[in-house]
Amino acid sequence: MSKAEIGLIGLGVMGSNLALNIAEKGYPVAVYNRTTSRTGAFFENAHGLRENVVPCSTLEELVAQIKPPRPIILMVQAGKAVDEQIAALRGLLSKDDIIIDAGNANFRDTIRRFEEMAGSGLTFIGMGVSGGEEGARHGPSIMVGGKQEAYQRVEKILTSIAARFEGEPCCAWLGEGGAGHFVKTIHNGIEYADMQMIAEIYGILRDGFGMEAGDIGALFAKWNEGRLNSYLVEITAEVLKTQDADTMRPIVDVILDRAGQKGTGRWSAIEAQMMGVPATAIESAVAARSLSAEKTLRRAASAAYGKPNKPDATTPDAAFIDDLELALFAGKIAAYAQGFAVMGEASAEFKWNLPMPTIARIWRAGCIIRSQFLGTLAQSFEADAEAENLLLIKDFVGMMQEAQPSLRRIVAHAALGGLPVPALSAALGYFDSFRQARGTANLIQAQRDFFGAHGFERIDREGEDFHGPWALVS
Amino acid sequence: MSKAEIGLIGLGVMGSNLALNIAEKGYPVAVYNRTTSRTGAFFENAHGLRENVVPCSTLEELVAQIKPPRPIILMVQAGKAVDEQIAALRGLLSKDDIIIDAGNANFRDTIRRFEEMAGSGLTFIGMGVSGGEEGARHGPSIMVGGKQEAYQRVEKILTSIAARFEGEPCCAWLGEGGAGHFVKTIHNGIEYADMQMIAEIYGILRDGFGMEAGDIGALFAKWNEGRLNSYLVEITAEVLKTQDADTMRPIVDVILDRAGQKGTGRWSAIEAQMMGVPATAIESAVAARSLSAEKTLRRAASAAYGKPNKPDATTPDAAFIDDLELALFAGKIAAYAQGFAVMGEASAEFKWNLPMPTIARIWRAGCIIRSQFLGTLAQSFEADAEAENLLLIKDFVGMMQEAQPSLRRIVAHAALGGLPVPALSAALGYFDSFRQARGTANLIQAQRDFFGAHGFERIDREGEDFHGPWALVS
Repeated sequence: MSKAEIGLIGLGVMGSNLALNIAEKGYPVAVYNRTTSRTGAFFENAHGLRENVVPCSTLEELVAQIKPPRPIILMVQAGKAVDEQIAALRGLLSKDDIIIDAGNANFRDTIRRFEEMAGSGLTFIGMGVSGGEEGARHGPSIMVGGKQEAYQRVEKILTSIAARFEGEPCCAWLGEGGAGHFVKTIHNGIEYADMQMIAEIYGILRDGFGMEAGDIGALFAKWNEGRLNSYLVEITAEVLKTQDADTMRPIVDVILDRAGQKGTGRWSAIEAQMMGVPATAIESAVAARSLSAEKTLRRAASAAYGKPNKPDATTPDAAFIDDLELALFAGKIAAYAQGFAVMGEASAEFKWNLPMPTIARIWRAGCIIRSQFLGTLAQSFEADAEAENLLLIKDFVGMMQEAQPSLRRIVAHAALGGLPVPALSAALGYFDSFRQARGTANLIQAQRDFFGAHGFERIDREGEDFHGPWALVS
Repeated sequence: MSKAEIGLIGLGVMGSNLALNIAEKGYPVAVYNRTTSRTGAFFENAHGLRENVVPCSTLEELVAQIKPPRPIILMVQAGKAVDEQIAALRGLLSKDDIIIDAGNANFRDTIRRFEEMAGSGLTFIGMGVSGGEEGARHGPSIMVGGKQEAYQRVEKILTSIAARFEGEPCCAWLGEGGAGHFVKTIHNGIEYADMQMIAEIYGILRDGFGMEAGDIGALFAKWNEGRLNSYLVEITAEVLKTQDADTMRPIVDVILDRAGQKGTGRWSAIEAQMMGVPATAIESAVAARSLSAEKTLRRAASAAYGKPNKPDATTPDAAFIDDLELALFAGKIAAYAQGFAVMGEASAEFKWNLPMPTIARIWRAGCIIRSQFLGTLAQSFEADAEAENLLLIKDFVGMMQEAQPSLRRIVAHAALGGLPVPALSAALGYFDSFRQARGTANLIQAQRDFFGAHGFERIDREGEDFHGPWALVS
């Protein structure tokens, strides 16, 4: 007799925690992992939840253990493994069974998989899950893409395992096809920008003033009580005050400065480029990770160029600390403006009709970028639905006006002091370009017409194909 | 009797000028355009070169007019038109005939076309041509990709039409497959960065000091006599001093600040992202063009935020002018470092073995980014072949050391004054991150391990999978 309500394949960090979350919410879950020993270990560790866990050692067993129509969550490595898993499952499943890819799929793969499964009788859902280990265990943010009718069939179980913000589940259907995975991709791109800007503020304090990790952590803890209140700022404070048990040094001081990057950050930058939407804060955050991996080159460059000039001040004063807080806040606004603009363009291009206020709402809890800021954003989006860019939403104009002078001062300070702030300065560059009614692309158009006869528009006449009376330059 | 040595299809601005160039060098060229009237008009305007031009009104005629084995240059719009043209030609051509795609193809399309034509008996070449209208007419820079043996069969004619730098033709075989079109793509990405940084300097003078276009042009003219000597700086000076005949105003003041972008700039950013190589100066230049197109949004933002603060000074003093010159030079070094790093990675990934000094050499004349700088670069590359990044080449360390304090001051000045400098600040952010032996990615690794159990490396032990003793944060 089938006893499980749902299946889950892939018992890595995310999959295991999601399975426990499901079991805890009262849904019997059949689990399977290609390496069978991991399934056994998972069951062993499931403690009080074992009665809702059905460990399976074959896919056939997994399928047999789930009540039809069967929802099966895949939490395997994005890419080829997903296709292999789907291929292995297809012959075992029946009409109306639902395969839910909950990994960090590239949304273009998700679109392809929808096409490949069309007409098979099976239902497919591409679902972004954010929240890391803890989120998966106790409530992630869940971004669903697929047929709305398919979502409705699993809505109850998904909302039950999702994070809650003031009682409201952080789970929603966002659109057809690749919508869920696309939104997750942009979530991760924004996460990259958030993390990079935090790291830049940390660098200004560490390298510009020689501050100790613990003292910097105390600042982040304080900031976490104000407008920067967010999971990432909170854990930054935690991380900075954590000691390494072996060396008794702050643990960040013994961690190598070489960061990995997964596909999603890079994909968000690539998709932004493909659509021609500026996402420079995200791009510079991805670039910073790439550059962090070039430790050998950086060592050589440091030897060649020496240390940068330090700023004069030896300890940051209160005004400077306030500037750092506001600079990070302004940078955040600009980075989110870029991320939402990318989603806006994708929504039009892929006809998803993405519900922006809903996206902000389901990011308020569970996911890595959860923050007070997203609460404000959700409200503001609803109040000002016509705004074409976050920077034009009424509430945000006020916040940005207050914060932007600090961003200027911090970028200037860092520039003069040789302290890298690629993401913060990209955010400022975006804002300053965005708020400029008359930009400098007129010069670029003149150059292009000069060398390539591309033509230009004029400010005083209709038409696109005016040319300048250029003298020839050899 | 066949009288032409070569054929050319596509008589747009680039194609027409390239055909005249070929004819002028003494090679009879058969020309064809889908719209026949254009072929006739072209022949009419070919004046003294008509005896070397064979206008053809059908593809059959074109093929019949060329001596076999026939080299045929396609200069049609990149994309579908190239595939259509190749399909239309294939049935008409004979073994060993050579199709040369000289448009701005995406190198991935070029690779596909090589595969599609494999075994057909026909030879294919993917060739980047830079230099705009004038370059095509009097000597472009030519970047060739394909079999080296194929290049040798057309080398004589290609080198004869190419630009020359101190007698040396700016034309070379760079590698197999998509190598030529890839290098052209990066050339264009660098061109975007060069142009954007020039526009930013122009903006600082126009908006920060209220300087007139002609006065700014005089500065660029002066700079063109020094280390910034280059075609783009030269034409910037020309453009800025040019008057509009109707309004008698500087022509840049009547040109709309909305720039177009073709595929290549964007592709260079996308490919850099795909390979995980930082190319932030190029990316921000592409983003600036995208943002320039959002004129309506920028107007709304300007109304919402008002004008930025202006810097105090009313006219730039000599020291500031020198800073601008050196800032542009430092920004250029960083942007080229990024472009060459992208080519380095692609060379490894696609096994092209790209000859970097040769690339610098064939960019010294003919192409849009030609400059004195590229001469220095070519020499330095040859002298220091082991350097893994342009910023580590000995000569460039000295130049960058001299110039970077100015870049800092200009970025800081612009940040404080609300003057957008996205590309210059991306260049500075790259340099400052690159020269940092100990970066801030240790914090990012700590965060990632905290929320996702990603693990980190330590500075004091081997291994990749250390974890922190994190307290739980809910």
